[in-house]
Amino acid sequence: MELSAIYHRPESEYAYLYTKDAMHIRIRTKKDDISCINLHYGDSVIFHEDSYEHQVSMTKVASDNLFDYWQAEAQVEFARIQYIFEIEALDHQKVLYGDRGVVEFTDENFNFFMNGFKLPYFHEVDRCKVPEWVASTVWYQIFPERFANGNPSLSPENSLPWDSKKSPQNGDFFGGDLQGVIDKLDYLEDLGITGLYFCPVFEAPSNHKYDTLDYFEIDKHFGDKEVFKKMVDEAHARGMKVMLDAVFNHIGYSSPQWQDVLQNDEKSAYKDWFHIQQFPVTKDNLGNNRQLTYHAFAFQGHMPKLNTANPEVKEYLLSIATYWIEHFDIDAWRLDVANEIDHQFWKDFHRAVTTQKSDLYILGEIWHSSQPWLNGDEFHAVMNYPLSESVKDYFLRKGLSTNRFVSDIQSQSMYYRRQVAEGMFNLLDSHDTERILTTAKGNINAVKSALAFLFLQLGTPCIYYGTEVGLTGEHDPDCRKVMPWEPADQNLELLNFMKELIALRKQHQNVIQFGEFTLSQGKDGLLRIHYSLGETQLTAFFNQTNKSLPISLKGKTLLSINTKKNTISSCTLHTDGAIILGCNL
Amino acid sequence: MELSAIYHRPESEYAYLYTKDAMHIRIRTKKDDISCINLHYGDSVIFHEDSYEHQVSMTKVASDNLFDYWQAEAQVEFARIQYIFEIEALDHQKVLYGDRGVVEFTDENFNFFMNGFKLPYFHEVDRCKVPEWVASTVWYQIFPERFANGNPSLSPENSLPWDSKKSPQNGDFFGGDLQGVIDKLDYLEDLGITGLYFCPVFEAPSNHKYDTLDYFEIDKHFGDKEVFKKMVDEAHARGMKVMLDAVFNHIGYSSPQWQDVLQNDEKSAYKDWFHIQQFPVTKDNLGNNRQLTYHAFAFQGHMPKLNTANPEVKEYLLSIATYWIEHFDIDAWRLDVANEIDHQFWKDFHRAVTTQKSDLYILGEIWHSSQPWLNGDEFHAVMNYPLSESVKDYFLRKGLSTNRFVSDIQSQSMYYRRQVAEGMFNLLDSHDTERILTTAKGNINAVKSALAFLFLQLGTPCIYYGTEVGLTGEHDPDCRKVMPWEPADQNLELLNFMKELIALRKQHQNVIQFGEFTLSQGKDGLLRIHYSLGETQLTAFFNQTNKSLPISLKGKTLLSINTKKNTISSCTLHTDGAIILGCNL
Repeated sequence: MELSAIYHRPESEYAYLYTKDAMHIRIRTKKDDISCINLHYGDSVIFHEDSYEHQVSMTKVASDNLFDYWQAEAQVEFARIQYIFEIEALDHQKVLYGDRGVVEFTDENFNFFMNGFKLPYFHEVDRCKVPEWVASTVWYQIFPERFANGNPSLSPENSLPWDSKKSPQNGDFFGGDLQGVIDKLDYLEDLGITGLYFCPVFEAPSNHKYDTLDYFEIDKHFGDKEVFKKMVDEAHARGMKVMLDAVFNHIGYSSPQWQDVLQNDEKSAYKDWFHIQQFPVTKDNLGNNRQLTYHAFAFQGHMPKLNTANPEVKEYLLSIATYWIEHFDIDAWRLDVANEIDHQFWKDFHRAVTTQKSDLYILGEIWHSSQPWLNGDEFHAVMNYPLSESVKDYFLRKGLSTNRFVSDIQSQSMYYRRQVAEGMFNLLDSHDTERILTTAKGNINAVKSALAFLFLQLGTPCIYYGTEVGLTGEHDPDCRKVMPWEPADQNLELLNFMKELIALRKQHQNVIQFGEFTLSQGKDGLLRIHYSLGETQLTAFFNQTNKSLPISLKGKTLLSINTKKNTISSCTLHTDGAIILGCNL
Repeated sequence: MELSAIYHRPESEYAYLYTKDAMHIRIRTKKDDISCINLHYGDSVIFHEDSYEHQVSMTKVASDNLFDYWQAEAQVEFARIQYIFEIEALDHQKVLYGDRGVVEFTDENFNFFMNGFKLPYFHEVDRCKVPEWVASTVWYQIFPERFANGNPSLSPENSLPWDSKKSPQNGDFFGGDLQGVIDKLDYLEDLGITGLYFCPVFEAPSNHKYDTLDYFEIDKHFGDKEVFKKMVDEAHARGMKVMLDAVFNHIGYSSPQWQDVLQNDEKSAYKDWFHIQQFPVTKDNLGNNRQLTYHAFAFQGHMPKLNTANPEVKEYLLSIATYWIEHFDIDAWRLDVANEIDHQFWKDFHRAVTTQKSDLYILGEIWHSSQPWLNGDEFHAVMNYPLSESVKDYFLRKGLSTNRFVSDIQSQSMYYRRQVAEGMFNLLDSHDTERILTTAKGNINAVKSALAFLFLQLGTPCIYYGTEVGLTGEHDPDCRKVMPWEPADQNLELLNFMKELIALRKQHQNVIQFGEFTLSQGKDGLLRIHYSLGETQLTAFFNQTNKSLPISLKGKTLLSINTKKNTISSCTLHTDGAIILGCNL
């Protein structure tokens, strides 16, 4: 037995309350090393008289290239739990693993209370709770300046005609606005969208609005509070949630606060609002400049970093966060550069916004693994870029073997608490990445397979505006092209595929969210997703090999294929094809 | 290379800010598997242009029976860090280990930003900060009812004469009080004590006072607020800190709040102050009763558990916590049954008390590993019972081999952030355990060795009243005997040993706190502690073998031995002997 591989951590994604009364307990062991694990558990006070009251055989729920992951659910009568793992290897060696590490399997060790792990008391207030509506939402990300122009009278004076340029440049304006969004709500409803995620809409000079001038105003080129309110109300009337982008890591150069610092330096009332290393502050060469005398987003001097530990700044930002909930009833905040802001701030943010609206969804922009933010008192989810990367590497860049891809996805499936995984924000592209059709070098079938895989994952999927009609684009600014509204400029076959896929996802939300999941590579090389929930089964096959392969449809219903014309003929799945099948649905 | 053994966790005891600007980074690998680890790190924005700017070879700082632990310190210019481990095995295999797990050692993997671990920004507000005074404090735990009777007029009517009973029973009173403590401050000062840790002093019917009636009053048998204030002031005048016991998990049966519930059941204004499962609440058979209709401490019905998530209860308890700081200037709170109270409560507690007094020490009573409470926003330390258990198993119960003991201590040395280890509350016995001379079955040399070992550990040591004069006692209530004040009843040799040991600890605090530490078993079987800091060295040998063994004193100063008479003759260390040597001190 490889003892050094055994891993568990109390009060983490390895030991947590899933519901009020049910605890999930996980353990990781070396791959193919262990034959079975019994979890012994019980009340930590009763333990002193009666040892562990219960035992359950743990289930191997995932395996990656290095590890097997096991899980069990435990409930106790008096809200206190103590537990220990009895681990048996394939070679029949048996050990106990608990709070004091690996010990011999003896009665004495089993009954020694300090060997037990604990969740000392089940506190509902500490439980990680994710709003229920999130798991079944399908998001659409809107970059407002480029989505639709509904009120040309608001457009910036220097706006370019819609569709006038194949590739937008950094400073370009096209006149997209909130009335444009309202005008297209029917389109989005028809597509099946139930959540709108907006890039920043507050007053700011740039086209991307990440350099906020005034967090309490809608940008005048996008509209005003009245049209914003109307947009939210009309979205709500269609059953769509609305998420805004909170850019709290930094403020814009043109904000009154930073302007005051520029004018008064150390005499400014706002000098402690920032991370100023030295006065006078740098006043020119504000582009990518490592010599800045203050901290900024990256080295971008026109986006000075806010000191979110300063109580004045905190109060100011939290008042913004609650203002847009209180007066406009928004449903979610997406937090820009969330990882560079202090945890204390986010804990206060969580408390403030969930007090205002108990089922508000808090989504952090973090690109790396994010356990420190996902313990229940900061974010509900992060933008799932690790998943994006793996999916794009496998389906679009063809850079991963099926084996490695399965391993990556299985590994990621154990990153977070189950309820967090259910609300994880899954995306493939965004305003910060190249577009997937570009990543795929135009391979539309590969793109469809990637999207099909995404929509069959636990979590809440998001489409970046235009991706559903085949918009292309390199990294920023090219990935921020205007939305092509002329049907002739749209890939209508892809659009229809997306409609089908979204409908399928919604129809089978239950088996995806609550079913038992397996992901595997068949002997033939096909990637297979399988969900089962009672009698219900959902299966998908993806062919990323370079040859056509047979599929058995026996006893199953054909739910969707990524393209009927090109990738399947009778029971054969061609390269880049995907097929989704159901049973007892 | 055993890849499945490699372990690191961002923003944990494996990756944290030690000081404002210096980050500690640790990694764990299989024992004797890895030859060297290079840590590559640098600014996470500069990374996109220049990859990792720095590299440092990591130091193997500890080894237990399963793992080697490696550590390095890293500083960056712009408060953002990204890092990756380059790991080379004894068999020369080399891999990279980062945020996406173990990957091949290639340029592409090295330069792929998603492979890097991150501490996205160094936030002082999130850093775990332990008050500076703690590490050099020597504590003395006082059980007030049994320490000294300075004002017999306050003693309960049914008090027994001091020293009248060899073994106290659960309901006994002897009349100890705060005036008694004041009277003995000279004694404690002479012993070398610099911190007083009091078991509860608030109004409560029992002798132990864990069943609080009124948190805003000093128990009338102990004195009043005036004498308490005098005691704090006189302690402070002697350079001693004062720590009180906050019993916030549960309240006493006789408290007005619980009495109201008993009278009014679901109509009580206090019904939500508790965890009541069903009305009417259980009104008799309040001893150890699993049928209680409310949650209590263990199953003790006379100590009903408080609902600390209720804002009213929280406000009430926090007002107590700040009251005794504001009006009496106490220096520390010890938190009873700390692990069974919710984390949200402790975060608010931390904020409230440190706002009141910035260097207040917060010590949680937790018997198991305590990472979830020691991230900087809840406790500064916990009662280090895992250390107690190992020391007692090894020195007193003779139940551990030297090898296993070394392994346990090394493993524990990696449990927490370095600053937490510096303030960890190290003890061997308390009002909740049997006394160490009893554990040792009267072997005084073994007890001295155990104490010498304790005082040579990082952390802040504590003596339980009476242990310094050889008081014995089984588990509660026997471990709560009255303090024997007659010299004839005291082991004066042990008392002198303790004075020497405390003086030695204080004199060499610096090398213990900041020196490089090794703990090892010699070929001869001796246990060896070694600290070095620059030229300064401190070495201790402990003989837990069953034969006398030679010691070389060459070039070293004899600082202390556990008993000059019995355990050393010239250069020989007898069984149960300990010797402490210095060099360039």
